[in-house]
Amino acid sequence: MTVQRAQRVGPARDRVLAVALELFARHGVSGTSIQMIADELGVTKAAVYFQFNAKEGLLRALVAPAIEELRLLVEAAEAQPRRSGQVATALSGIVELVIKNSRLNAVVLADPAVSRLAHEDPILRDLTGRLDRLLAGPDPDARATVAAVMVGGGLMAATTDPRLAELDKDELREYLLELARRLLGLRAPRTRA
Amino acid sequence: MTVQRAQRVGPARDRVLAVALELFARHGVSGTSIQMIADELGVTKAAVYFQFNAKEGLLRALVAPAIEELRLLVEAAEAQPRRSGQVATALSGIVELVIKNSRLNAVVLADPAVSRLAHEDPILRDLTGRLDRLLAGPDPDARATVAAVMVGGGLMAATTDPRLAELDKDELREYLLELARRLLGLRAPRTRA
Repeated sequence: MTVQRAQRVGPARDRVLAVALELFARHGVSGTSIQMIADELGVTKAAVYFQFNAKEGLLRALVAPAIEELRLLVEAAEAQPRRSGQVATALSGIVELVIKNSRLNAVVLADPAVSRLAHEDPILRDLTGRLDRLLAGPDPDARATVAAVMVGGGLMAATTDPRLAELDKDELREYLLELARRLLGLRAPRTRA
Repeated sequence: MTVQRAQRVGPARDRVLAVALELFARHGVSGTSIQMIADELGVTKAAVYFQFNAKEGLLRALVAPAIEELRLLVEAAEAQPRRSGQVATALSGIVELVIKNSRLNAVVLADPAVSRLAHEDPILRDLTGRLDRLLAGPDPDARATVAAVMVGGGLMAATTDPRLAELDKDELREYLLELARRLLGLRAPRTRA
């Protein structure tokens, strides 16, 4: 009976998740179907559906461990008695989390068709390289390069995040300029009288 | 002959691009096929292929105006005689560009299946809201909220950008912590003796 049960369960859950992550990375979540996952595993669609009732369930299962880590770090930070301890715990925790989950982040962050264009198009690569040098200096060290990359990611996030959708464009522009300068370690420009 | 030519050309180029952007936003670039675009336009696949020889060509045409603006701003910044003027021109230009192209950024930035999970899952929304308050303070103003969103986007970018893939993890962790603190306007923590 144990054997029958194991057969009914189909491919091991971990194997389905590993294959899903690989296909999501290659085709994007939206570009991957349960059929593609089943084909890659050499099983029927029904066998995949037996474990995950939809592609959203697979995506959820893939990010569940990271969400659980996020929950633990938020609770640990909230439990700190002082504000300084709360920020320090939250920051070191979230930095650790994104470093640890960088492969998963890449899958959930970008559409692979877009990443290919961004990283393989010679004109765009040339322009983003020149922009990096403008922001980080002509011969940037690793810290300055990280700051320039964070400026890019931060600006993209701030202009697409639904939490900031209601913010006045002039106000947003002012904060983005100020925060990007801060990130690059630049002083505020002299204001013209 | 003019009429025949117009018919051969099929749907207007701008109309194809508008429909493609809409479908990319809904299904992701990787999740959208030329067939889906043709169906939405009510034409044959051949009519779409007549204007764009592949989906990559459509994506390229959609981002081409933004790439041209990027080229102009990089050249204007490089033409500044001083380093301070170069940074100022590059920064104000790139902030303007991302604000202006926020809809396009959203399409190229995230897989819609992932965005739905991130913004609609109540557990994840609760956790990211609590993390925001930990980083930006319990009752953050707009500036502090923008800073917290930029921390999130910056960290995701820095841990997935191929330019930083070779960087030692300990070094990356140190820079990310320092730069995130800078972005949040926090002083460096006292080091333990």
